[in-house]
Amino acid sequence: MTSTYLVEVIITNKKGVRDPEGETIHKHLILRKGYASVQSVRTGKYLLLSVNALSGEDAIRIVKELCEKLRIYNPVVHDIEVRLRG
Amino acid sequence: MTSTYLVEVIITNKKGVRDPEGETIHKHLILRKGYASVQSVRTGKYLLLSVNALSGEDAIRIVKELCEKLRIYNPVVHDIEVRLRG
Repeated sequence: MTSTYLVEVIITNKKGVRDPEGETIHKHLILRKGYASVQSVRTGKYLLLSVNALSGEDAIRIVKELCEKLRIYNPVVHDIEVRLRG
Repeated sequence: MTSTYLVEVIITNKKGVRDPEGETIHKHLILRKGYASVQSVRTGKYLLLSVNALSGEDAIRIVKELCEKLRIYNPVVHDIEVRLRG
């Protein structure tokens, strides 16, 4: 018996890789408008997949596998996080 | 005394608004490659802000306010979700 699980995928640049979009939002928008309590901004891509699977772990396994096999992200520059939507 | 909190912002198209990027990833990549257990894909934008605040709720309040005031998203077509990174 399978159920449907919502799986989130978050793709961000690796720590050592610059994030010009996040830097721009931070310096030229947020800080300029006076929100000095914001220390940094990192941007990323968000995917929400609805997956039929035997369990939550099985759903995560399927999504991790397809993200790698279909090159949804570039492992050289991106970090990927796959988790159930809680 | 303030602490630093990591706050996630997820910006997605509202349910009634189409998501051509997600539809393309689903139909022309994931299904074509045989992952029939995936029912749907929705895409979105992910932001991770590091914020100095008095509490987690205070950090969320600051981020919600700046997202609205600085038009980080378009309330006509986007849903926004602001949460502490757990």
